[in-house]
Amino acid sequence: MAAFLGTPAPRRLRLGMVGGGQGAFIGNVHRMASRLDGHFDFVAGALSSTPEKALASGQELGLAPERIYADFNTMAAQEAAREDGIEVVSIVTPNHMHFAPAEAFLRHGIHVICDKPMVTSLSEARRLSETVRQSGCVFVLTHNYSAYPMVRQARDMVLNGELGTVRVVQVEYPQGWLADSAERSGTKQAVWRTDPAQAGAGGAIGDIGTHAFHLAGFVTGLEVDSLAADLTRFVDGRVLDDNAHVMLRYKGGARGMIWCSQVAVGGENGLRLRVVCEEGSLDWEQENPNHLSLARKGEQTQRITRGGAMAGAAATAMTRLPAGHPEGYLEAFSGLYTEAATLIRAKQNGQSAPPGNLAPGVEDGVEGVAFIEACVRSAKQNSGWTRLER
Amino acid sequence: MAAFLGTPAPRRLRLGMVGGGQGAFIGNVHRMASRLDGHFDFVAGALSSTPEKALASGQELGLAPERIYADFNTMAAQEAAREDGIEVVSIVTPNHMHFAPAEAFLRHGIHVICDKPMVTSLSEARRLSETVRQSGCVFVLTHNYSAYPMVRQARDMVLNGELGTVRVVQVEYPQGWLADSAERSGTKQAVWRTDPAQAGAGGAIGDIGTHAFHLAGFVTGLEVDSLAADLTRFVDGRVLDDNAHVMLRYKGGARGMIWCSQVAVGGENGLRLRVVCEEGSLDWEQENPNHLSLARKGEQTQRITRGGAMAGAAATAMTRLPAGHPEGYLEAFSGLYTEAATLIRAKQNGQSAPPGNLAPGVEDGVEGVAFIEACVRSAKQNSGWTRLER
Amino acid sequence: MAAFLGTPAPRRLRLGMVGGGQGAFIGNVHRMASRLDGHFDFVAGALSSTPEKALASGQELGLAPERIYADFNTMAAQEAAREDGIEVVSIVTPNHMHFAPAEAFLRHGIHVICDKPMVTSLSEARRLSETVRQSGCVFVLTHNYSAYPMVRQARDMVLNGELGTVRVVQVEYPQGWLADSAERSGTKQAVWRTDPAQAGAGGAIGDIGTHAFHLAGFVTGLEVDSLAADLTRFVDGRVLDDNAHVMLRYKGGARGMIWCSQVAVGGENGLRLRVVCEEGSLDWEQENPNHLSLARKGEQTQRITRGGAMAGAAATAMTRLPAGHPEGYLEAFSGLYTEAATLIRAKQNGQSAPPGNLAPGVEDGVEGVAFIEACVRSAKQNSGWTRLER
Amino acid sequence: MAAFLGTPAPRRLRLGMVGGGQGAFIGNVHRMASRLDGHFDFVAGALSSTPEKALASGQELGLAPERIYADFNTMAAQEAAREDGIEVVSIVTPNHMHFAPAEAFLRHGIHVICDKPMVTSLSEARRLSETVRQSGCVFVLTHNYSAYPMVRQARDMVLNGELGTVRVVQVEYPQGWLADSAERSGTKQAVWRTDPAQAGAGGAIGDIGTHAFHLAGFVTGLEVDSLAADLTRFVDGRVLDDNAHVMLRYKGGARGMIWCSQVAVGGENGLRLRVVCEEGSLDWEQENPNHLSLARKGEQTQRITRGGAMAGAAATAMTRLPAGHPEGYLEAFSGLYTEAATLIRAKQNGQSAPPGNLAPGVEDGVEGVAFIEACVRSAKQNSGWTRLER
Repeated sequence: MAAFLGTPAPRRLRLGMVGGGQGAFIGNVHRMASRLDGHFDFVAGALSSTPEKALASGQELGLAPERIYADFNTMAAQEAAREDGIEVVSIVTPNHMHFAPAEAFLRHGIHVICDKPMVTSLSEARRLSETVRQSGCVFVLTHNYSAYPMVRQARDMVLNGELGTVRVVQVEYPQGWLADSAERSGTKQAVWRTDPAQAGAGGAIGDIGTHAFHLAGFVTGLEVDSLAADLTRFVDGRVLDDNAHVMLRYKGGARGMIWCSQVAVGGENGLRLRVVCEEGSLDWEQENPNHLSLARKGEQTQRITRGGAMAGAAATAMTRLPAGHPEGYLEAFSGLYTEAATLIRAKQNGQSAPPGNLAPGVEDGVEGVAFIEACVRSAKQNSGWTRLER
Repeated sequence: MAAFLGTPAPRRLRLGMVGGGQGAFIGNVHRMASRLDGHFDFVAGALSSTPEKALASGQELGLAPERIYADFNTMAAQEAAREDGIEVVSIVTPNHMHFAPAEAFLRHGIHVICDKPMVTSLSEARRLSETVRQSGCVFVLTHNYSAYPMVRQARDMVLNGELGTVRVVQVEYPQGWLADSAERSGTKQAVWRTDPAQAGAGGAIGDIGTHAFHLAGFVTGLEVDSLAADLTRFVDGRVLDDNAHVMLRYKGGARGMIWCSQVAVGGENGLRLRVVCEEGSLDWEQENPNHLSLARKGEQTQRITRGGAMAGAAATAMTRLPAGHPEGYLEAFSGLYTEAATLIRAKQNGQSAPPGNLAPGVEDGVEGVAFIEACVRSAKQNSGWTRLER
Repeated sequence: MAAFLGTPAPRRLRLGMVGGGQGAFIGNVHRMASRLDGHFDFVAGALSSTPEKALASGQELGLAPERIYADFNTMAAQEAAREDGIEVVSIVTPNHMHFAPAEAFLRHGIHVICDKPMVTSLSEARRLSETVRQSGCVFVLTHNYSAYPMVRQARDMVLNGELGTVRVVQVEYPQGWLADSAERSGTKQAVWRTDPAQAGAGGAIGDIGTHAFHLAGFVTGLEVDSLAADLTRFVDGRVLDDNAHVMLRYKGGARGMIWCSQVAVGGENGLRLRVVCEEGSLDWEQENPNHLSLARKGEQTQRITRGGAMAGAAATAMTRLPAGHPEGYLEAFSGLYTEAATLIRAKQNGQSAPPGNLAPGVEDGVEGVAFIEACVRSAKQNSGWTRLER
Repeated sequence: MAAFLGTPAPRRLRLGMVGGGQGAFIGNVHRMASRLDGHFDFVAGALSSTPEKALASGQELGLAPERIYADFNTMAAQEAAREDGIEVVSIVTPNHMHFAPAEAFLRHGIHVICDKPMVTSLSEARRLSETVRQSGCVFVLTHNYSAYPMVRQARDMVLNGELGTVRVVQVEYPQGWLADSAERSGTKQAVWRTDPAQAGAGGAIGDIGTHAFHLAGFVTGLEVDSLAADLTRFVDGRVLDDNAHVMLRYKGGARGMIWCSQVAVGGENGLRLRVVCEEGSLDWEQENPNHLSLARKGEQTQRITRGGAMAGAAATAMTRLPAGHPEGYLEAFSGLYTEAATLIRAKQNGQSAPPGNLAPGVEDGVEGVAFIEACVRSAKQNSGWTRLER
């Protein structure tokens, strides 16, 4: 197992957070992820856009009173001014509130860990990319599924060529929690995700389709040339898509398909990736993440286990426990945080990023937003093939 | 369990066969299927277009010498003339050889059980449909997957409305046996399936896509309005598609997607159907056919077992064994044969078809050919939405 | 796939049946099994000990009136006297009615296919074994689970030594259908199975424990030296065990354990065999019979598929369909019937049994009865280690 | 989801550790578990019995130099004397080194979290129990599998009576990592676990059998009356058992069986618990811990998901993430740490233990050691039924 996972370096990085106050889901995930491997101390936050809630949340989480902020601009300025100010900030707000805080912290030289989709328009995405470049800061986008050890294993096997040319990529992502109009009954997670003002132009395609899209590219290394999307709204009164079928044509001739849905009753978080290559196929399911199924041509299916005999270096680097001791969602998420820590420390020490550090960055964010926009454009053109513009 | 399955009526129906001689795969499947429930005696055949092979095959199978025929026209005429002539014929030749024998036997008043896809063009399909109508004969198309008990259960649950409106239909059918150019190495099954002169215009889409398409319609009762298809050939030198992605728009607003592939290394016969409805979802896999997964909204996933507590009348009618005693492919295939026998006996007795007999017929065949043609047309128009013409 | 499965020889063997009339379960299974591969014609029967029921059953099944018998002795005598008399009889009565008909038919030189457990006492078992020897007839005991292709594969892999010495054998067989007092509500299958006068001294241990025990010996080739059994009755008023835990010591040092239960709510027919060897382990589940799980030391788990790349000759000999086309319980049962036919034809032709024919015989029956008696004896001695006496 | 999981209280508890230095496995698990929910700060340690290793390990982990100890007695004394001394210590040494440090810290009024099996003899166990009582300290034994949310769910369903009386308990725990003599090749984990001087009288039965035994009692609430054990050593030169079969008789009539093995090639960490009750059965597998299978009598099997519609309060209290976002081994382990924190805070505040806090304690430790001793005694008496002495 990897030396760096779970064995913290002596000094922890000072971490702040924007969003993630009381009632939020993903904020707590980020905080747990930041703690597991011991690389961060959470010390400051603008945890809600409602000042009272920001205060109450900060108190509940044990922040020092003077480091509980009511707005992220103040936080960026004041933390940058402190000797013991935060070195990195996690942005865990709804999509429309990623861009402004990211810009603010980067301009103060504070590294950023940001939720996905990165921003709500391609123009914002390009501007943010430029800001990151200029700032010299680390920017990590939490496409957390890419940090599962068996996903790293899959990527390694595809990219090292042992399975031959990729032919077909199938990604599916069924969820069922929006089968009803949960937004009307006030479920916080549903309200902002179904509101174009907060979520952007993509519904399911933005919320989970971008994960599917990123995962496919991450594992195969392929770039989408064009796509044909059929976006659907099944729930009355909903404005954004809650089901999407997307056909993909990759550069070089591979074909792909994404199905993502938030009305698939019974679906929990059913992300699954299958990669069909000339010499073998891979199959991975997020809900059963400790195994990867491998079928080589002319052989029988094998089950590669995290921590097991066939797991290679890329998987091992993200592994904390031996086979049979299941790791899950938080471990993968923590893996990204640890990769972020490694990148930040390298930067602080004037070193280049260590090899094998695969944390998704700002360009992945641009690509994801480009994907959403291409899907929406294709859907408006009756599913016509639409080029992905980056 | 059903009274009629496995308990033969006193007199067996006399059965002939066209195709299915030495080296064929599906002919033996039909013969086993015809035997299991004891409704047929196999007594005559034109088992190959090569006379010596037809003879050797007939002898090996124990046919009386005078009932081993070198061509199906002679067989149709002579059997029709015998007092003890066959009452029904199974046509198990490559696709391009379905139409002519079917016409020949029907014109002699002999019932037909025919392999799929029914014929190789929509015009032939319509003519055959007219011939069936005029002949008054039974015509059963062996979309055998529709005869699995748990498929019947799924159909029943969708059509009786307990799951609400259908929203999404996902069908996939990965196979891997044509990942290489098996046709060049002379594998008989591969040679004719990849040859447009024998297979028709569809490769994977005709061979297995039609099964996927039929199953979706069978279970949901929905009709496809239009489709958008991306057909691909991955193996060098192949003329017909070996991978297909198809997006479907059903009348009434449901959406669907078919992925079928014959280059999906590791795929054996991975037909899987998922139906997402407003109030629940169903999931069925052909390789694990004795169970049906049901998720009702707000509840947890349940596993319906063939022969178990939740199996209803439609499933029970196709069930021979109690739960835990797995039935498979041959049992489903036999179920269709038994349904064919029931239809023939009803016809012979001047009765109407018994309720609950769901054997696919000539109109399903027309629909399947229409599907292939629409896919091919859409693919030629860069995957543009294409109406299914019947 | 095997030439002999599903491709009948020209002449079918004439088959009779004792038991298996209306309301019976296993009789119909035997008849379907006898038909699938086309080696038998069912022509005579003493289908019930109740004459009217024997008559009605025979008529329903289309037997000629003169070959519907009210008792098996008459049947044995008259069929032996006919030129076209039966060549083989299937005995499918409750356990206490196996011995007498088996003796009767064997003495008339008629081959026997008999249900398990063979008889209800070790002394009967030994006498029957002697009768079989003297008669020169074929005697096949329907331990049908041993005829699954993947069980043959497992046996082959263990016996050819590639997995090294067997260390541990785990067999489990949970069923739940007797969790209540089904016998009091008159369920025919439950009534005789829970009645020592009809079932013998073993309840669950006799009905399904013998299958588990036979399977373990069949696959490993090991002989049990002694066993320690804890037999339990959970349902009020029941006389025979409905749950059994048995620890096994094999000759040579391997250890084993059997758990069989008929009160395991949710259990359908959950026979599972795991064999742990020095160099690898095997895992097979009857409810998912088309796959065998193999773990070699230092490697990852592989899934061997019936009809797939790793299936060897022994499995292939019992295989009708390619991988992905599931075969089930009836196919395995039919495999035994086909092996019986092959043995009978060899006998009729004065040939020795063909190699690779593994149909269980009378000695397996003796062993099974010895197992039941040893379990009962051990249980009476507070689970003391008890030698298996043969 | 639970309020207390993942949302740390303002002040963290000061934690020390005995054992868990470089090369250890479980020490790092404890440290990660202590961090995830944010209730502990790790500040002191006697991490190895080798002073140089203790020093290097402490430095690597960022401990202050004066709080890196070479022996646990010094640590206990000095930490107890510090104003900011540790409030709780984790003991993660080999089994024979649990007793002395536990006694030492308890006598200084420091709470203890201790690995299992608790100690190596029943007399030590009783003495430790008495020390805990006298100290008034919290003592938590890390039977971590009992902290999985779906295990809590199972316990709740059994104990609230909805499934009726327990009839049969099946526990299995196959591992394969000791199939060879890993101890001779110097694998640290193998060396001490196979050495009676360090591991105690039980091999597999002590290392993993105690987990299986605890889990069965935890979920069912039943007490074992007596057991019959067959302990085996398969690997040459090994002194302790590496495979065990144990039959159990519970007070009240339920029966059980444990199979645990460390030579089961292919086994990773295959702990599985099945509980058969009069009205339903439960099935849980540690390697797939986010689901619990429920079969009610007369119904079909349902899959209860952590975070899903059927999860009750006991499961929810241990749940951090919604359904579909898998939690694993570390989350369960962290759950125990959080329960320990809650107990310690209650104690510090003079409150009684909060209801629903199910962290295993010293009496579970006594019971586990009694189990090992009973197994060893039974095995010596040729598997005779042996009473569990507590």
